[in-house]
Amino acid sequence: MITLYTWATPNGRKVSIMLEECGIPYTVRPVDITRGEQFAAEFVAINPNAKIPAIVDDDGPLTVFESGAILVYLAEKCGRLLPTAGPARYAVLQWLMFQIGGVGPMFGQAHHFLRFAPAPVPYAIERYGKETRRLYGVLEARLGEAEYLAGDYSIADIATFPWVARHAWQQVELADFPQVGRWFETVGARPAVQRGMAVPA
Amino acid sequence: MITLYTWATPNGRKVSIMLEECGIPYTVRPVDITRGEQFAAEFVAINPNAKIPAIVDDDGPLTVFESGAILVYLAEKCGRLLPTAGPARYAVLQWLMFQIGGVGPMFGQAHHFLRFAPAPVPYAIERYGKETRRLYGVLEARLGEAEYLAGDYSIADIATFPWVARHAWQQVELADFPQVGRWFETVGARPAVQRGMAVPA
Repeated sequence: MITLYTWATPNGRKVSIMLEECGIPYTVRPVDITRGEQFAAEFVAINPNAKIPAIVDDDGPLTVFESGAILVYLAEKCGRLLPTAGPARYAVLQWLMFQIGGVGPMFGQAHHFLRFAPAPVPYAIERYGKETRRLYGVLEARLGEAEYLAGDYSIADIATFPWVARHAWQQVELADFPQVGRWFETVGARPAVQRGMAVPA
Repeated sequence: MITLYTWATPNGRKVSIMLEECGIPYTVRPVDITRGEQFAAEFVAINPNAKIPAIVDDDGPLTVFESGAILVYLAEKCGRLLPTAGPARYAVLQWLMFQIGGVGPMFGQAHHFLRFAPAPVPYAIERYGKETRRLYGVLEARLGEAEYLAGDYSIADIATFPWVARHAWQQVELADFPQVGRWFETVGARPAVQRGMAVPA
């Protein structure tokens, strides 16, 4: 059995989507980050970086934190959504890393400055708004030449979907990025994605 | 033969260090980002995200962009610095992802606001300075219990070292983080690391 420590955020939902795709049984342990529960000693013992998501797999036993590492772990455990060798494997890993190092952190800064900063910071709003739109442009070009980010549906799409699902927070209209919109509808129609996006209940 | 498209940045140097550690022959193609060479059509055809590093491996043939994906590719190619299975593999991947999604983007924002922004933005300087020191604290705690980030020396250390090498840009004194300082000296004493940090010449 896998225990998933998570909250209703894009990084958390990557993992619940993947668990649903793999059909692996799991128990959800909500970590309410609005109440600072990620700083509790019990959770910091699992992830010293005090961030969700993290998993504990009794079939190991093994603890993994960082959503990107958890996606690779689950893909290798269930033998799906990450080819085991060759160019297709590294296509998935490069688009996964594009999400982990680019889309996630930069959309996250846009969220902060557009919604959460205590006072407007015009320079930062401009900086992260512009970078967010540039990243959507990279996704748009890629999805104009491939059905999914790495060709076939993979953990790269699972990592990116929950961040694009927050496009309203980023003040981005998917109508401006029609290929991203097409991909977003296709991925969002998958039953496993819909179940994963509803975690934690 | 591998062609490495790179510049004298932390992300570029991760890959030259890894190539040196693996002893894989490679040709360096400098992409001068101070002159916008990453936007040239020839390079964007390799990385549509217009960022260094990227590699082209004739023994494939195969192109990989995103430094984290390149590190995994090279580790799997040379069979070193990333265990092939078990808890040790995912320990490496989680600390690698911690660098890709946390240390890199957040130290990068600190660099921007401390050195490159056209005018001081006090809120952002405080935000990214605080997050940078928090991340150093996570590294410090981890390196107080393990010699290297994932136990044994790995691609997680290779990914993190060139970012810590810019600690002066981050206005961080390694004397405040003695375990990080101890690790920085040990990793920095490796001949392959020294050769990789000197690329491009």
